[in-house]
Amino acid sequence: MSQPNTIEFFFDIASPYSYLASTQVEGLSARTGAAVRWRPFLLGGVFRAVGNTPPVALAARQPYLLKDLYRWAAHYGVPFNFPSFFPVNSLVPMRALAGLPEAEVPAAAAALFRAHWAEERDPSDAAVLTDLLGAERVALASAGEVKAALRETTDEAVRRGAFGAPTFFVGDEMFFGNDRLHFVEAAARG
Amino acid sequence: MSQPNTIEFFFDIASPYSYLASTQVEGLSARTGAAVRWRPFLLGGVFRAVGNTPPVALAARQPYLLKDLYRWAAHYGVPFNFPSFFPVNSLVPMRALAGLPEAEVPAAAAALFRAHWAEERDPSDAAVLTDLLGAERVALASAGEVKAALRETTDEAVRRGAFGAPTFFVGDEMFFGNDRLHFVEAAARG
Repeated sequence: MSQPNTIEFFFDIASPYSYLASTQVEGLSARTGAAVRWRPFLLGGVFRAVGNTPPVALAARQPYLLKDLYRWAAHYGVPFNFPSFFPVNSLVPMRALAGLPEAEVPAAAAALFRAHWAEERDPSDAAVLTDLLGAERVALASAGEVKAALRETTDEAVRRGAFGAPTFFVGDEMFFGNDRLHFVEAAARG
Repeated sequence: MSQPNTIEFFFDIASPYSYLASTQVEGLSARTGAAVRWRPFLLGGVFRAVGNTPPVALAARQPYLLKDLYRWAAHYGVPFNFPSFFPVNSLVPMRALAGLPEAEVPAAAAALFRAHWAEERDPSDAAVLTDLLGAERVALASAGEVKAALRETTDEAVRRGAFGAPTFFVGDEMFFGNDRLHFVEAAARG
């Protein structure tokens, strides 16, 4: 028997398609036997590094983008609300996730995603973030090594070919977007 | 019984994801009972109208884009070859398609798509185009009313919200991208 595959899931809570994918990766893991590593990174840093812009930046795309997000949420059967506070600066919440032991990241990230993309609660607001993660975890976000770790994960993703979020790797194979999860699943099955 | 739905398929032969979608729409039609209207338009005109750029314009995306195209082709079981002559100016071939009776468009477009995206034959080359469509059909491309019809279809797509290709409509509902055909299929089932 070969080792089960690992799926790396690079995400930023500011990214709505990362939220949608985040609701699916554990089911995909259960179906394939592949482990999922939740890897917080900074989408803004990726965009700056490669000269990309978010899809919402194209005005003509905005009405469609909203419809598409709600279609995916309905397709998955997950709650979705495009928040009044979009876009947020996700730097502090993403640092807080980067400061956690890896085993705690999925549940913590899910709480931030749900707040942002279903509950109209802004995780870049310090009070909301503290309520979601607890004061001790939020305090970790300001540690120098945590800031460096988040930068390093972002740089690693760019080095490996990322240009947006969510981005998945199965070994060296990269997949971009919630709409490529079927290819991720096929790769995870090997 | 209500009328069967119609799927409008706006495409440009210069667009590789339009090619991929073109290999699937007739099967989708057979499964749903919905008719497909193949609607040639000019992707370059859409891009100019809305200020969009093709995904290949982002250098950091190019290696992934190629992989993604070959993955979709393998997934569909259709031939694919990223041509050495990319990108082409599709104006004349798209005019030739716009000049055809609607019932002849699917087979003619399929021949141009296959040439461009599987057979390393450039349909913007006059000799290739004549070989593929016949001299009489190519001659129609230079008629003033045909040029106007292609512009009008492009303008119509932009008015209805299009910003790229392929774009589908089921009634007023718009869908963008080969990777949204599952949503098109659900809408076509009503």
